[in-house]
Amino acid sequence: MSTAPRTARGERTKARILASARTAFASLGYHEASIVKITEGAGVAMGTFYLYFPGKAELYHEVVVDLNRQLRNAMRAGSEGATNRLDAERGGFRAYFDFLTDHPEVYPLIREAWFVAPDAMRTHYLRIFEGYAQALAEARSSGEIAVADPEVAAWALMGVGEVVGMRYLSWDANQPPQRMPDDVFEHLMDFITNALLPRGEQA
Amino acid sequence: MSTAPRTARGERTKARILASARTAFASLGYHEASIVKITEGAGVAMGTFYLYFPGKAELYHEVVVDLNRQLRNAMRAGSEGATNRLDAERGGFRAYFDFLTDHPEVYPLIREAWFVAPDAMRTHYLRIFEGYAQALAEARSSGEIAVADPEVAAWALMGVGEVVGMRYLSWDANQPPQRMPDDVFEHLMDFITNALLPRGEQA
Repeated sequence: MSTAPRTARGERTKARILASARTAFASLGYHEASIVKITEGAGVAMGTFYLYFPGKAELYHEVVVDLNRQLRNAMRAGSEGATNRLDAERGGFRAYFDFLTDHPEVYPLIREAWFVAPDAMRTHYLRIFEGYAQALAEARSSGEIAVADPEVAAWALMGVGEVVGMRYLSWDANQPPQRMPDDVFEHLMDFITNALLPRGEQA
Repeated sequence: MSTAPRTARGERTKARILASARTAFASLGYHEASIVKITEGAGVAMGTFYLYFPGKAELYHEVVVDLNRQLRNAMRAGSEGATNRLDAERGGFRAYFDFLTDHPEVYPLIREAWFVAPDAMRTHYLRIFEGYAQALAEARSSGEIAVADPEVAAWALMGVGEVVGMRYLSWDANQPPQRMPDDVFEHLMDFITNALLPRGEQA
């Protein structure tokens, strides 16, 4: 979708364009975020922009994929070291909500992507889904959790994160994004624990 | 937000404008769906349009609120007659998914609303939330379900419906919307039952 920079300086320039684009797309929306505004925000010339990106559509796609990579890295780090699936859920959800607080661009970017970059939207969800469904399937095989279908459970839990995050972190675009309140987080973990834990076991 | 028609004929005209706008906004997006296209689609003159709506923003808001009302009516009808909360969930989710299949406009409208009509987006979620949280609270009081917090559970379940519906009904905008496959629905009901049912009880 974009050209790989050949130098470290090129890497930095491309990263500056992506960062400027992320902010512009998220705050102005796709249609209002012009390449002129994005290059101005990045402090690069229009000609430089086209060395890296063929156009605005490809740039939007790369912004979403880049942010998704960061999000998954954060979630992986958050669940690392967990000794069972429920602890991994706790660490992963905590990291997910923290990332959304620190990157309020995620919601507007993914939501507008339905129209302006449907492929990028599907990529965003599928890349989270793949590792998640596999982790749930493994935990089910080992008897740690009991779900009828790990794939359906993965989509359901992704929905839980998306809408609970929207409500408690980013509900009002005029306010700075919040941290997830501790009590909401604990109530949510209780919900998720019940959904996953085998019936015979107590949380 | 809009002017109430004074005659039955006016009601029909306004309904035609709303239907045309719903299709145009959902298929073209807010920016491309011009008032010219919407009035042409409705078969009404531009001057007639302005008798009912001050402009495109107010029209978008009313389209979302109108569709939300229909969705809630369908969900209420779907859960009517249920003798316990889990049956009400089953009937409500079934009606919700069927409505999304029959009205593929819901996803694009709600997702783009993040930018173009954030008040309408919040209204959409809050109107579903209010009745849902109350129903869960009542079922919790009577001991039918065990959730730590009915409000958090309501948002979580709304997320489950939104993302599972997106994945299995409307994932590919180039394909006609699907019905929810029976096996996915049953796996989802299993997930929801576990999330809600008191620990000591078997589904």
